[in-house]
Amino acid sequence: MKRLLIVASLLGAAPALADEGMWTYNNFPAAKVKEKYGFEPSQDWLDKVRLASAKFGGGCSSSFVSPDGLVMTNHHCARGCIQQLSTAKKDFIANGFYAKTQAEELQCPALELSQLVEITDVTDQLNTATKGLTGKSYADTLKAEMAKLEQACTKGAPDVRCDVVTLYQGGKYNLYRYQRYQDVRLVFAPEHAIAFFGGDPDNFEFPRYDLDVTFVRAYAKDGKPAKSPNYFKWSDKGVKEGDLTFVSGNPGRTSRGLTVAQLEYLRDTGLPKQLFKLSEIRGMVSEFQNRGPEQKRISSNLLFGVENGLKSTKGKHEQLVDKAFFAQKVAAEQELRAKVNADPKMKAKYGNAWDEIARAQEAFRNMRKEYENVENGFNSQLFYVARTLVRAADERAKPDTERLRGYNEANLRSLENQLMSKAPVYPELEIAQLTFALTKIREELGPDHAFVKKVLGKESPASLATRVIKGSKLADLKLREQLYKGGKQAIEASKDPMIQLAALVDPDGRAIRKTYEEQVEAVIRKNSELVAQAKFEVYGTGIYPDATGTLRLSFGSVKGYTEDGKTVAPITAMGNTFDRHTGEEPFALPKSWLAAQKDLTASTPMNFVTTNDIIGGNSGSPVINKDAEVVGLVFDGNIQSLGGDYGFDESVNRTVAVHSEALIEALKKVYKADRVLEELRPGSTPTVKASPSL
Amino acid sequence: MKRLLIVASLLGAAPALADEGMWTYNNFPAAKVKEKYGFEPSQDWLDKVRLASAKFGGGCSSSFVSPDGLVMTNHHCARGCIQQLSTAKKDFIANGFYAKTQAEELQCPALELSQLVEITDVTDQLNTATKGLTGKSYADTLKAEMAKLEQACTKGAPDVRCDVVTLYQGGKYNLYRYQRYQDVRLVFAPEHAIAFFGGDPDNFEFPRYDLDVTFVRAYAKDGKPAKSPNYFKWSDKGVKEGDLTFVSGNPGRTSRGLTVAQLEYLRDTGLPKQLFKLSEIRGMVSEFQNRGPEQKRISSNLLFGVENGLKSTKGKHEQLVDKAFFAQKVAAEQELRAKVNADPKMKAKYGNAWDEIARAQEAFRNMRKEYENVENGFNSQLFYVARTLVRAADERAKPDTERLRGYNEANLRSLENQLMSKAPVYPELEIAQLTFALTKIREELGPDHAFVKKVLGKESPASLATRVIKGSKLADLKLREQLYKGGKQAIEASKDPMIQLAALVDPDGRAIRKTYEEQVEAVIRKNSELVAQAKFEVYGTGIYPDATGTLRLSFGSVKGYTEDGKTVAPITAMGNTFDRHTGEEPFALPKSWLAAQKDLTASTPMNFVTTNDIIGGNSGSPVINKDAEVVGLVFDGNIQSLGGDYGFDESVNRTVAVHSEALIEALKKVYKADRVLEELRPGSTPTVKASPSL
Repeated sequence: MKRLLIVASLLGAAPALADEGMWTYNNFPAAKVKEKYGFEPSQDWLDKVRLASAKFGGGCSSSFVSPDGLVMTNHHCARGCIQQLSTAKKDFIANGFYAKTQAEELQCPALELSQLVEITDVTDQLNTATKGLTGKSYADTLKAEMAKLEQACTKGAPDVRCDVVTLYQGGKYNLYRYQRYQDVRLVFAPEHAIAFFGGDPDNFEFPRYDLDVTFVRAYAKDGKPAKSPNYFKWSDKGVKEGDLTFVSGNPGRTSRGLTVAQLEYLRDTGLPKQLFKLSEIRGMVSEFQNRGPEQKRISSNLLFGVENGLKSTKGKHEQLVDKAFFAQKVAAEQELRAKVNADPKMKAKYGNAWDEIARAQEAFRNMRKEYENVENGFNSQLFYVARTLVRAADERAKPDTERLRGYNEANLRSLENQLMSKAPVYPELEIAQLTFALTKIREELGPDHAFVKKVLGKESPASLATRVIKGSKLADLKLREQLYKGGKQAIEASKDPMIQLAALVDPDGRAIRKTYEEQVEAVIRKNSELVAQAKFEVYGTGIYPDATGTLRLSFGSVKGYTEDGKTVAPITAMGNTFDRHTGEEPFALPKSWLAAQKDLTASTPMNFVTTNDIIGGNSGSPVINKDAEVVGLVFDGNIQSLGGDYGFDESVNRTVAVHSEALIEALKKVYKADRVLEELRPGSTPTVKASPSL
Repeated sequence: MKRLLIVASLLGAAPALADEGMWTYNNFPAAKVKEKYGFEPSQDWLDKVRLASAKFGGGCSSSFVSPDGLVMTNHHCARGCIQQLSTAKKDFIANGFYAKTQAEELQCPALELSQLVEITDVTDQLNTATKGLTGKSYADTLKAEMAKLEQACTKGAPDVRCDVVTLYQGGKYNLYRYQRYQDVRLVFAPEHAIAFFGGDPDNFEFPRYDLDVTFVRAYAKDGKPAKSPNYFKWSDKGVKEGDLTFVSGNPGRTSRGLTVAQLEYLRDTGLPKQLFKLSEIRGMVSEFQNRGPEQKRISSNLLFGVENGLKSTKGKHEQLVDKAFFAQKVAAEQELRAKVNADPKMKAKYGNAWDEIARAQEAFRNMRKEYENVENGFNSQLFYVARTLVRAADERAKPDTERLRGYNEANLRSLENQLMSKAPVYPELEIAQLTFALTKIREELGPDHAFVKKVLGKESPASLATRVIKGSKLADLKLREQLYKGGKQAIEASKDPMIQLAALVDPDGRAIRKTYEEQVEAVIRKNSELVAQAKFEVYGTGIYPDATGTLRLSFGSVKGYTEDGKTVAPITAMGNTFDRHTGEEPFALPKSWLAAQKDLTASTPMNFVTTNDIIGGNSGSPVINKDAEVVGLVFDGNIQSLGGDYGFDESVNRTVAVHSEALIEALKKVYKADRVLEELRPGSTPTVKASPSL
């Protein structure tokens, strides 16, 4: 799979007529879109599209699709909620969900939507505050200044969140103000079997036949559906080959601006280590599912996440071990450094930045095991709850600017939301996960490491995990509230074994985190700022920043591609979905689809691909046309797009979406979801009588 | 862990006074040993040591330690046999085994020992036969010529095996003649808990406290103990710091002579892919063990192998991603190529070899998925049996020189031995393994690949695996024999679903294997020969070849080392074993040891390290002194030695062995194994009365 890679962003040249870029809303290349596609988005258009978009939970995207708070996202984005609302007897993952009346809409236990309402550039404030500082004082000041800006922005309002976003590796800082929706209710979800038809084997592949959709509704504080005047209307025409498409969503992270030293670390150590761990967890959870149907149900969400992460991380690793691609990265960096070094002023200012980053990366290589295991090694829902309580007790007693990030006043509402989540805890799965985590900690650090001895004592990973999970009462939300409110004293008095474990390991976690933040993070941040500034100085500012999990807009068009010498057509047909049905998971269609087959129009477009530049986190993004109407729903990228973490190749990188017409056809004929249809396309009349079966 | 690496072998310079090298018995640097250690092994000494050594099964080492066929090896080498002899009610892995009389010695179902009785250099014959040939004709001729030599050597004798061994990547070919011992019986094994005390967390670590020993006995064809006039006597003095030590055994594979292109492939693709798979299998099998005690028992051997392979492969990967180390490899290759290119005759002869290897490696990269999945993807004991039957039916009908390697007349006795092995088949584990394997095949090739469609049809991996394993009668040895004898006709008539599966996929496997052999293997072999010859021409012949799973001799001495700034003493004491006991697996000592603690002399040396150059496959090798007496039993290398696959660093690479005195102390006081003691040290009197408890 040798390809001609276009890494224009790296070189800083505006990427000519390529559809590259996950653009911020305050630096969108509207003129460039006009040049290529003949349409220039106006500021008003951009504002409306931004306000009709919403970040979904921690890592997905979504959009308002009615004036009454109806929100569209992917099934796989809402899986957590759907599973949490399910029980052994009512399995909405397996059987789907449809609230035939508004009263039947079920509240998601731990989900929030955020709408980006304002962007302010705060680069100057932060640069002024940190001027001349390095290491610890740089890190502390930056953190304190960010907390101050965020706090001043939220003004304590519980439905507002403000984040300082680090763009261009620190080349720019923007303050993002969000409207939060914390009451989100499930409206409609299809069966897992069609939402993720083809399962892991088909994940990140195309052609594809999935109905990866879920509708939820945002509610206002008064318990009524939220008003959403900015929403996307549904397109009557859908979308066809060659049409211009926009995708508005929250790409999680790309690493196109990293230095060669950072990429080498990822290629040789970072990604392989992640992959070893994910692979092992996958083997463990796949086999855990064989314990029984209930165990299968409670672990299916975890397995989905692990398999998805595994496949996408493998794609990233393959991109970095591509010698030709890596050589391009090296060449681009050498070119930039040569230009910097050729100018004495730039050389003095930026010349050392790459070597400083390389040194910090080497420092991280030496502390990786401790950082990842001591601070980030305890993989259990109840442990997270316990640690949050332990840390909140300490942090809330401090002045805001001195707290750990995540515990500032501006973050506390989100933190409390997470803490008081009604998401069920499954002790059997928790024990399996924590046993695994403790085994890894011992394996990586060695049984003679002081921390391992302190944690395990004479216990094995399995016996410690079993004792603290079975003994903990933290599934009880009242206890959590009591401990949260009780602060330090309540924590110290607690006999809960999970609280005791979290308290036992907390000093070690804080210590290595501090070392990491000062010796690695601060150095890389500081010097990445310099690299970014050098790029601006050499190549200009018409470039987009790496993805940061915040709202971006990309443009492109519906277009096939060539793979192994064969042409891949850009749109699949609903009828062919049935050709792929074998009756065995993950190629078993749900009964509802088999029953509706005769009613469905086989030629209805099912899934399609576009040249939009996206990455993980864009799941659930709407695909819209130039009239800002919904024509599709992003749910995946093709396998080639996974390398998009490091560079975009328009010839093969593709966004994969559900076609708007497939959504309508299925809602109408398979699910008879008239209430949703009417809301999406007011005045449209359902053709089939509603069935009580779902 | 930056270290000064000595890769003398690469540069071809005799490695001065370093203890580097896994030397062949016909090119041992006796003078060098004398120079450093004052002792020069004579030809007679070398012959005797060679004949007292024995290859153990497919991948371990062992030694004769009495004139009556008593053989010493590691517990982990004999695990397969011990588990196969166990049942749910008699678990010799958990409880150990001791045959108090010779009549109680139990025959291992599938184990053979081989003693290297003769080495003949056949380089000239093979080079003459293949002169001027390339690609397919080179590969075919080489294969045919090897088969002829082997056949002429065995002369059809069932207790003789002959292998042409490719040394120096084809720089030399030697014909090895072995005496085979196919009746091997279990004499003594300790409990798994002390044989592998510390388990996976301690594996490849030091200090260490293991009694990783098993004694078996070779039997002659008449059913009586084999006579073994060449055997190692037991040392009365043991071994202490600084003492000269020799290790005679079968290191499996090193890759020190590979080209940079080959190492890059391993670093970027080969090793990571292996590690992803092994990690996932580990997760799967670890969780499979939770199904119940019997499932734990039947899968423990598999888990041990997987964890051992995983840890050692991780060590190799870490060595290759060490930038300084890799740079040395690049520099060494550049130096050699520069010398070759500076001489017009050498340049003409060898100059292209490296690029040809790189091209073949690239060709392999493109066919890896098919080769590894279609030909090597079906991981199941019964599948191997079925495929062997299917292929044997085809191959045995052909002239000897045209057969697939492994099916030549010279190999048939070994093959039949494996085929008729009484090793139990565990259907539940088989189903889990084959389901996993089929899932991987589908994952790597994709569900739309013609081969995947052909194999799975409408079935899922789990349903296909369940059907063919449950439906197969191949656990029945009589059926195997009948199908083997019945040849092609019997195979074609068979309705056994596993036979049918093996027959279904065989043409695809053969096709990709053929492509691989001709486009990759033959090209690499041919050009590696040239690289090796270039090395001989530039640096002389006083170098050792990469390990090839055949008998080698290494020298060294008992010596500690420095790790993270701390000195690691070379010998541990038996008493400290008890300090490490927590009562929880894998740090739970067996009852026998806890009961005997008061009788054991705490200062008895337990385990020790030496500078001998070894690698996986050396497990079970004796450590002997200059008088060829047993002073220890190799069972591991330290973590640093894992990089030894690519280069030896005497400052930290260490062999880990059980001390001879620990073996005596335990046999005497813990196990009261008087019969074994008396045989090891005739005339020694046991001090404690035999207990009937074990």
